[in-house]
Amino acid sequence: MDYMEEALKKHYEWRGKIEISPKAHAGSKEELSLCYTPGVARPCLEIAADESLSYELTGRGNLVAVITDGTAVLGLGDIGPAASMPVMEGKCVLFKEFAGVDAFPICIDTKDPDEFVRTVELLQYSFGGINLEDISAPRCFEIERKLKERLQIPVFHDDQHGTAIVAGAALINALKVVGKDIRTATVVMSGAGAAGIAIARFLLSLGAGNIIMCDKNGILCRGDESLNSAQKEISQVTNAGCMKGTLAQAMKGADVFIGVSAPGIVTEDMVASMNDGAIVFPMANPTPEIDPSAALRAGARIVGTGRSDYPNQINNVLAFPGIFKGALAVRASDITEGMKLAAAKAIASSVPNPDENNIIPKAFDRGVADKVAAAVAGAARAEGIARIG
Amino acid sequence: MDYMEEALKKHYEWRGKIEISPKAHAGSKEELSLCYTPGVARPCLEIAADESLSYELTGRGNLVAVITDGTAVLGLGDIGPAASMPVMEGKCVLFKEFAGVDAFPICIDTKDPDEFVRTVELLQYSFGGINLEDISAPRCFEIERKLKERLQIPVFHDDQHGTAIVAGAALINALKVVGKDIRTATVVMSGAGAAGIAIARFLLSLGAGNIIMCDKNGILCRGDESLNSAQKEISQVTNAGCMKGTLAQAMKGADVFIGVSAPGIVTEDMVASMNDGAIVFPMANPTPEIDPSAALRAGARIVGTGRSDYPNQINNVLAFPGIFKGALAVRASDITEGMKLAAAKAIASSVPNPDENNIIPKAFDRGVADKVAAAVAGAARAEGIARIG
Repeated sequence: MDYMEEALKKHYEWRGKIEISPKAHAGSKEELSLCYTPGVARPCLEIAADESLSYELTGRGNLVAVITDGTAVLGLGDIGPAASMPVMEGKCVLFKEFAGVDAFPICIDTKDPDEFVRTVELLQYSFGGINLEDISAPRCFEIERKLKERLQIPVFHDDQHGTAIVAGAALINALKVVGKDIRTATVVMSGAGAAGIAIARFLLSLGAGNIIMCDKNGILCRGDESLNSAQKEISQVTNAGCMKGTLAQAMKGADVFIGVSAPGIVTEDMVASMNDGAIVFPMANPTPEIDPSAALRAGARIVGTGRSDYPNQINNVLAFPGIFKGALAVRASDITEGMKLAAAKAIASSVPNPDENNIIPKAFDRGVADKVAAAVAGAARAEGIARIG
Repeated sequence: MDYMEEALKKHYEWRGKIEISPKAHAGSKEELSLCYTPGVARPCLEIAADESLSYELTGRGNLVAVITDGTAVLGLGDIGPAASMPVMEGKCVLFKEFAGVDAFPICIDTKDPDEFVRTVELLQYSFGGINLEDISAPRCFEIERKLKERLQIPVFHDDQHGTAIVAGAALINALKVVGKDIRTATVVMSGAGAAGIAIARFLLSLGAGNIIMCDKNGILCRGDESLNSAQKEISQVTNAGCMKGTLAQAMKGADVFIGVSAPGIVTEDMVASMNDGAIVFPMANPTPEIDPSAALRAGARIVGTGRSDYPNQINNVLAFPGIFKGALAVRASDITEGMKLAAAKAIASSVPNPDENNIIPKAFDRGVADKVAAAVAGAARAEGIARIG
């Protein structure tokens, strides 16, 4: 099936992948008087007296904004706000279908991080949570940090943390299968953009003891003044031995490879040079860093990619619907590291007996979102940031 | 029925009066590949190459934002963004139920008109049109003017123009019933805020030859330095004879009274002092300037109010759904005076044989929106601002 041409045809048919459906109706004088004037004045006054009632009396309690500036859409780059909308609408479909969460797509037409932050801040009373999407690095770090500081509702950049959580879940089970410990395993990463840095940080939270980050210039090492500020930060807490060199040199003897970089940059020789029981996650999309069959041929024990046509698909849809469902359920004020860890562990534990071809649930396993939601809500309660429940 | 308590109860049940419903689905690998990655890249690239395709390939072509700052909500005043949401959601229900137009509610948390304008400007690629709602005067004039200048999509402040269009439609038929001509009739208005000024301007477009505006200080007259800038402007084109005095003095011998001011300020004596065949529209909500039965007793020939429990309900729902449906149908870049006049005439002509108790269609006459839409689309085409159709 030619997905590209068929998708274009379907988009012309859909003319928008979501619609707004009334839950209240206005088909009679009585209905109109309840859902609009004069009756609507009553819930307005309740919320004016106690803002938290906006979560009960409007849709805010189950509503997420999917917000982008269109600067890093899929692998297409900076295609602008209007052109990013099909992706944002698609994400909203997934929120509703996988977790019953209402999500609405918004494209903000600015590349100024402060203007973007201010715009989202001004919209916060219309939503229960903010899912940031497809914003280029390093701007996305600043935008997310400032929004988390300023907003009283959860903010989550899925390209960073959704990817990190699902990769982390896959790694938990993969390490179990090969009998290794994350504290002693050597993890080599290729790609030091938003996703790569977020994955590295998350693996540190999971206990990783030895991460070597690489980008197209080779191994990242502290003290390198050519790094951007996010890379400088991550280089302070990875590559403790200040190893220098190429990705190929980093991979020699490594236990884990995780790629969020570029197609085809990993050779069979590089995989063959890894330690026994090698775990290889070439997650570049749509074309991985190395073809899974080539990686297996070269000696990898477990391979996971972003693709649905191979085993072990590492797909964000396993995380973000349940994470927001859980955060909204307890009206959490934030999505914390603890909530993300709880999500990864819930995803991993959804596979009762992991093996080489089964380290992560299938993307369409609809039970996962509820397990993730329950774990995330529990973590929010434990951290004292749940405002109800 | 106690609408207030029942409405509160229903709002607790609804937990939001609208929801986001997927039109595309993601229940299988094939569906996911079409509505999300990888297929979604194709419509994104089409829009990146030709932005106008966002109207075909996303929901934008049938999507209106209902936007407020919460400063003038119903008669409740400045209750803020969160508390205004029940009204905005209700409006979105009406858009969908009366015209099939998707509408999404947004509350912007700023009282700075320029910041409000900039925020809406940054959101414009997410929507096909902007319905402004419940913004206090005189800020609403500046906000609407600047947005109309800057945006390429239609902007419409319903509290001003929706009210003006429906009142204008009612007046067209009422004058027909009493056999008077708008060019020679004297129209006295009470209320010189957003709605009052918009109605006056619209009646001028309809050909009104003699309008006397009053506010709580009496008749507005050019040269009065105590007027705000919008009132100064309207005083230049009304009250040509520079009449001064009270509302009661203005009403003596007048043919039409239109009130968008305060409950109970018009007495039976004032109505009795009007010309024969008096038309009285006391539209203050929920309590009119004079009780309709009192106005009739005092000699008014035709009475119309905003209330559904009397004949001749002057209700905005007759206008805004069809206006946006028509504007979106031809992808109009604006909602012009000509389109508004076409809407008023379409509403008036929906009553084939008007009489004293039947000058305006019933609010639930579902055929009106399509007639309005067709007339508005036709006017946009005639003015050369239709971008399709």
